[in-house]
Amino acid sequence: MSDEKTLMAAYQEAPYHVAGHGARTLEVLKEAFYDRDGEEESDLYGKGRVIEDFQEKVARYLGKEAAVFFPSGTMAQQIALRIWCDRKGIPKVAYHPLCHLEIHEQDGLKMLHRIEPVLLADRTRLIEMADVTSMPDDVSCLLLELPQREIGGELPQYGELEAMSSWCQEKGVKRHLDGARLFETLPYYQKSAAEVASLFDSVYVSFYKGIGGVAGAILAGDADFIQEAIVWKRRHGGDLISLYPYIVAANHYFDRRVGKMAQYYAEAKELAALFNSCHGVSTRPEVPVTNMFHVHFARPKGEMEPILARVYQETGVGFVGALRDFGKHASYFELSLGDLYETVPRDSLRRAFRLLDEALSERV
Amino acid sequence: MSDEKTLMAAYQEAPYHVAGHGARTLEVLKEAFYDRDGEEESDLYGKGRVIEDFQEKVARYLGKEAAVFFPSGTMAQQIALRIWCDRKGIPKVAYHPLCHLEIHEQDGLKMLHRIEPVLLADRTRLIEMADVTSMPDDVSCLLLELPQREIGGELPQYGELEAMSSWCQEKGVKRHLDGARLFETLPYYQKSAAEVASLFDSVYVSFYKGIGGVAGAILAGDADFIQEAIVWKRRHGGDLISLYPYIVAANHYFDRRVGKMAQYYAEAKELAALFNSCHGVSTRPEVPVTNMFHVHFARPKGEMEPILARVYQETGVGFVGALRDFGKHASYFELSLGDLYETVPRDSLRRAFRLLDEALSERV
Repeated sequence: MSDEKTLMAAYQEAPYHVAGHGARTLEVLKEAFYDRDGEEESDLYGKGRVIEDFQEKVARYLGKEAAVFFPSGTMAQQIALRIWCDRKGIPKVAYHPLCHLEIHEQDGLKMLHRIEPVLLADRTRLIEMADVTSMPDDVSCLLLELPQREIGGELPQYGELEAMSSWCQEKGVKRHLDGARLFETLPYYQKSAAEVASLFDSVYVSFYKGIGGVAGAILAGDADFIQEAIVWKRRHGGDLISLYPYIVAANHYFDRRVGKMAQYYAEAKELAALFNSCHGVSTRPEVPVTNMFHVHFARPKGEMEPILARVYQETGVGFVGALRDFGKHASYFELSLGDLYETVPRDSLRRAFRLLDEALSERV
Repeated sequence: MSDEKTLMAAYQEAPYHVAGHGARTLEVLKEAFYDRDGEEESDLYGKGRVIEDFQEKVARYLGKEAAVFFPSGTMAQQIALRIWCDRKGIPKVAYHPLCHLEIHEQDGLKMLHRIEPVLLADRTRLIEMADVTSMPDDVSCLLLELPQREIGGELPQYGELEAMSSWCQEKGVKRHLDGARLFETLPYYQKSAAEVASLFDSVYVSFYKGIGGVAGAILAGDADFIQEAIVWKRRHGGDLISLYPYIVAANHYFDRRVGKMAQYYAEAKELAALFNSCHGVSTRPEVPVTNMFHVHFARPKGEMEPILARVYQETGVGFVGALRDFGKHASYFELSLGDLYETVPRDSLRRAFRLLDEALSERV
């Protein structure tokens, strides 16, 4: 078996996982439907109680006039940017080089909407006020992702966020929030979702990340913006006859988990400290600001995989199933804390980190 | 209460409905999941047994090399046409004026893909061989819808279909099948799905029409075409982390109903004859060629609504919940036969048509 497969197998066999809410099985859907009356009517092309009630609930939570449920954030965000570009008549937006639209969507924004991105900051750091004030004049919309996932889930200070938002508003640049992990930022910011969302003209949130639903997203904003988004949703092929499978699950897990973000955040700080206590291991951010962070090893994947596999096998505690290269001589992985962390026995966890530290100390 | 609302209320209260598989309630999903193991793994961005197995099954059924599951037919078809246009380098396709892409998709094909349609035939009839042979030279793809839903579900003779297909193949025009209701055409054509699909380069089928699933579609074709479609699916925002809610339901109801299309077709012919036996009522087609047809009344909506409502109330048999205008002095509705027809008591059905005929005779 390759080292990659050994690691994945050891992870899958480990009875305890430090991250996530549990396996993505059919049970995630089935659980959400157990208590729902089978007689309840489906939504029908965006109409009906099941979709309208949830849209209103999330719009209220985000402090926006209106909201529309989308099958995916990819679709929701491209559409938000298209509307802002069309309104200004300039197909140009600004975002981070590691923005989801830039690296995970096969260039849908460019190929479908012919919108040109201006990349702010660089792949190693957050967008800062100076990046924003030096943008080209003809940008229709600035997209900010909170937290910036691909660099470990970093967040700007709230004051800087407010300053960037105000500057854009004054200059007539629309502000879109990639809030895929917005709920996860609130304990650090000590703000409500509506307070953060008030800094943006449009907001996207996801229901399968911190919330742990099956799939789906909400786009929220002013009523006229959302009306346009609904038209574009149909154009994109997102106005499904029935979206209730995702909505029922989103609603179920939203109610269960949106109040647990402070717990996940505290646990992330604790877990990051455990990683940072080991030789040749560091986290980014060093002190997490949400429930997520990256774990960096000063050794390549091929060396780390058997070490981690042995830790999992000997302690029953799994950290992750796969590593990624970080240059040629280092490796890393991403963690997002959820319901599972509190189920890991404390002594097993301590033993896992002791073993990891020993293995890394020995071999250096 | 308005006449429209009276009709809808009477329909909803009627214990028997002649069309469809039953109400679109949450039970449709719940039933499909009852026997599925909760431990089964979700698909993950297009990978995993639940999606791959179903795609292979439908590809085999359609006699195509490969297939990909889409959340919607809107997305699947725009993408198919985009690929064919890109390959030829000419953003022009030909289809019927009542094509789904022309009238139900908010011009997604034009607004997202900048593809220009050439409209063949007219709104009253099918595309014929002469329409095809007189197309402009620079059309990349011909889309044919079988059956042509918006004119009551008509079908070309199979020989004409073969001739149109061959002509396009010779001229290098790609052939795309809007097979939203392909399964429903097979009993009339007395062909397998693979035989009909062999006349086309790409085929879309739906799982919530005759099949009665929750939502979702398959696009099938050559392996390289499907590989491109998968890239476009991500661009469109259709590559959801989990599509299994639709796939599990599609598979469940496909197995249950794909073999019942001959029954629905026979019942449609029987029911159409009952409508045609009434004064001032005619169906299109007069003799259905699938499980669907349109029912035309020689009276306006406002006159028909109270008549139908009374028929439903007195017999317990509902035909439809809403009528549409057909010009100023006539009205119509669409019917698709499914599991419910056989549950309607024969004597109630006969009484409903006797009452309808009497009401229409009296008042003329």
